[in-house]
Amino acid sequence: MAKQQLIRLADFSTEAPSGWKEKPTEELTKDLVKRLGDLQQLLYAEGKHSVLVVLQGMDGSGKDGAVHKVFDACRITGLTLTAFKKPTEEEFAHDFLWRVHKVAPQKGMFAIFNRSHYEDILIQRVHGWIDEKRVARRMQAINAFEETLAFDNNTHVFKFYMHISKEEQEKQLRQRMEDPEKFWKHNPGDWKERELWDKYMEAYEYAINESSIPWHICPVDDRWYRDYFIANTLVQALEKLNMQMPPLATS
Amino acid sequence: MAKQQLIRLADFSTEAPSGWKEKPTEELTKDLVKRLGDLQQLLYAEGKHSVLVVLQGMDGSGKDGAVHKVFDACRITGLTLTAFKKPTEEEFAHDFLWRVHKVAPQKGMFAIFNRSHYEDILIQRVHGWIDEKRVARRMQAINAFEETLAFDNNTHVFKFYMHISKEEQEKQLRQRMEDPEKFWKHNPGDWKERELWDKYMEAYEYAINESSIPWHICPVDDRWYRDYFIANTLVQALEKLNMQMPPLATS
Repeated sequence: MAKQQLIRLADFSTEAPSGWKEKPTEELTKDLVKRLGDLQQLLYAEGKHSVLVVLQGMDGSGKDGAVHKVFDACRITGLTLTAFKKPTEEEFAHDFLWRVHKVAPQKGMFAIFNRSHYEDILIQRVHGWIDEKRVARRMQAINAFEETLAFDNNTHVFKFYMHISKEEQEKQLRQRMEDPEKFWKHNPGDWKERELWDKYMEAYEYAINESSIPWHICPVDDRWYRDYFIANTLVQALEKLNMQMPPLATS
Repeated sequence: MAKQQLIRLADFSTEAPSGWKEKPTEELTKDLVKRLGDLQQLLYAEGKHSVLVVLQGMDGSGKDGAVHKVFDACRITGLTLTAFKKPTEEEFAHDFLWRVHKVAPQKGMFAIFNRSHYEDILIQRVHGWIDEKRVARRMQAINAFEETLAFDNNTHVFKFYMHISKEEQEKQLRQRMEDPEKFWKHNPGDWKERELWDKYMEAYEYAINESSIPWHICPVDDRWYRDYFIANTLVQALEKLNMQMPPLATS
């Protein structure tokens, strides 16, 4: 298969593009968030498609915040959110995709993954818990898995790499130690992981470059731009599905 | 990838090999079934491997009988049996592997599938419910799925095609209409499927030839040989794993 040019994360800005201003962007985002709610309702009613949104990024890259902001107008009836943590004993006694496949969206549903199956080639690789051969095989398995969701269940897979600068991460992690409202998010282990920054960047680049379903690289240093970016990406793509409210059932 | 020679089912006998006699074979089978029980216990205690046995074949090919006979000495603590029927509404709203992956064996477990994910490229193909492009993509997805179980969870996958002759099938289906003890197994739809025999053979040959994990073609017209064949295949393979009872835990 012909490869497109390899992506290097360092070539992408972690900030809003020049010229973009906070206030007017927030206005745009407000409309997009509302429109996303309508599209999700349509997806649910029509029941032909499903959506999987994957949010991956370093600690402090604003995954939780994106969930709250972007999907604010979606109805939880048609929405599932899974935050993947350290595998349980039962999960660990299965292949790495087992716990992920279980929560793949059924038709009509919108699934959000806060972290995902990619952790199994990120944190596990960076710490050397798995060898490079397993990394490559897992990458193949991930591609086959995502493709199966796509072709066999009309699942539209949107993967966002939450692109944060190392400086902004420090600011975010520090806030968690200074603001009592954020103490609960502070985890001393995050500072340890931060020491592995370069290895993480390499592992992310590998995942992004080897994925058959492409990633969206979302600048997150300006949180207002992050929300616009994700909402806009989803709305533009879902509009193209040309979904329709089903006619009145007559039997 | 270099392909080995294609298998044609018509080249394989559906009967016991010449020279094999019922009584002495049953004696061999008795020992093998007992040994399989011991190996399953070892697998459970050791907790490093898992086993998936797939039984696929036409109606009347003796899948249920094989389950009862071959696994008679296994303990249900470490065993799961899944009989795949027509998908439920929830299953149908997911990709075809979703319901299968959910019940994949965890380490230490022995899973038996009576029918399997292969139905999705057999019955669905023969009836033209899916197009050939989807058949090919599903076949790729099946290979990736089984390989993932194998490399990422030490799952040893044993797939048996229950090879029955068309004449023997007629006898089996007729018995279900004549023996009151078997009335419950009679399904008029089975005779309808029988009319599609040749198409089924083609679909099975495709599945067998395109699988990356090889199939065992099990002659089932002589039920006593079927039991020997499956038990022997499993015992020979599991012996090679060289499983050991774990030492006494000291902490």
